[in-house]
Amino acid sequence: MRSKSITAAPEIEALIALLAKVPGLGPRSARRAALQLLKKKDVLMVPLAAALTNAAEKVRPCSNCGALDTQDPCTLCSAYDRDDGLICVVAEVGDVWALERAGAFKGRYHVLGGVLSALDGVRPDDLRIPKLMERASGAGVREIILALSATVDGQTTAHYLADRLQPLGIMVSRLSHGVPVGGELDLLDDGTLFAALQSRRST
Amino acid sequence: MRSKSITAAPEIEALIALLAKVPGLGPRSARRAALQLLKKKDVLMVPLAAALTNAAEKVRPCSNCGALDTQDPCTLCSAYDRDDGLICVVAEVGDVWALERAGAFKGRYHVLGGVLSALDGVRPDDLRIPKLMERASGAGVREIILALSATVDGQTTAHYLADRLQPLGIMVSRLSHGVPVGGELDLLDDGTLFAALQSRRST
Repeated sequence: MRSKSITAAPEIEALIALLAKVPGLGPRSARRAALQLLKKKDVLMVPLAAALTNAAEKVRPCSNCGALDTQDPCTLCSAYDRDDGLICVVAEVGDVWALERAGAFKGRYHVLGGVLSALDGVRPDDLRIPKLMERASGAGVREIILALSATVDGQTTAHYLADRLQPLGIMVSRLSHGVPVGGELDLLDDGTLFAALQSRRST
Repeated sequence: MRSKSITAAPEIEALIALLAKVPGLGPRSARRAALQLLKKKDVLMVPLAAALTNAAEKVRPCSNCGALDTQDPCTLCSAYDRDDGLICVVAEVGDVWALERAGAFKGRYHVLGGVLSALDGVRPDDLRIPKLMERASGAGVREIILALSATVDGQTTAHYLADRLQPLGIMVSRLSHGVPVGGELDLLDDGTLFAALQSRRST
C-alpha cells in the first residue's frame, strides 16, 4: 500500500496541507480547492497568490484602534467626518467590518483583539485595554459603546471594562438585546426572548 | 450609506474577492478566512502564498496521461512497477488521487479532463480522447477500464469510448455498480439498489 504522500507531487501536497488550515476548508475541500486552483491557474491561482503576498506585506493593525488597514492610523481613525466623541469597543476586526456594513455607526472604533476568558487564559494584559483607557481619557470623548458578544466571555469583558471606565466620568453603554430583525419569535431561545421582554419599548 | 468597498482596505477586499472564488468558500467564509489569514500572517498567510506560487509555477499536466505533477511524464506514468497493459480512464485528476488513495489499482491512468455533455457543450474534441486512442493502440495494452461517474454524462462518455475502443480488439471494462461499502440499504436510491441486484454475485 502506497503512503498518502505519493498521491500527488510534494508541491501539491504542501498546498493542500496549507489550504486545509484556512478556516472554512477541511482536508477534503482543501483537496478539491487545490485541484480547481491548478485548473484555473491564470485566472485564480496566480492572482490569489499575489493578493495574499500583497495583503501580507501591506496590511497592518492600526496603532490607534487596532483595525486592519494599509495605512496607520487607519482610514476609519483618520476620516475627518466621524465623531471623535464616540468610541465603539469591539472584540475583533470582523466586528468593525460588520458594523461598517450596517452603516449604523459614525464614531471611532477600538478593537480589543479578543475577549477576557478564564478558560483560554486571556487576561486584561493580553487585550488592547491600556490603549483604550488612554483613548477614553482623551479630551472630547463623551461615550464608550461596548459592542461585545452576548456570550459569557463577552459580557464578562463588558463588565470589566465598564468598571474601569466608570471612574473616568464618561458614559458607558452596551448594545441592546432583543429579537433579531426578521427573526421569528418561536425560533428564538429563552434568553433572547427574556432580554427582549425586559428591554421592551413603548411604541 | 457607505459603499461596501470602504469596509476594508482595497488590498483586503481584493483578497476576499479572490478567496470567495475558491471552491468551498463563499462570500461570508472568505471574509472570515481573510481575517484569520491576516491574523496568522507568518504561520499561514505567507506560506500559503509561497505554496500557491510554487505549485502554479511547477505543476503541469502530464503530456501522456493528463494528471498533474511537477515532472513530465508524471510519477505515475514513469513508475517502473506499474502495469503498462492496464489503462484506467477517469474524468478528472481528483479521480486519480481517489483511486491512488484506495491503493486498488497498479496500472496506468488516463485523465480525460471532463466528460461529454450535450448541456455544457463538451464534445469529444474537447477531451483528451485522441491521446487515449493513441495510447490504446500501443503495443501491450490489454485492457481499458472506464472509471467514469455513474451519471448520465459519465455513462454517455463511457458508451462513446467503448464504441471507439472496441474496434481495437482490446478488452474494455467498467467499474461495477452496487452498494457502497458501509452503506445502509434503506438509505440507498432505487437506481443503486437495482444495479446492485442486477450484478449480484454468488458467495
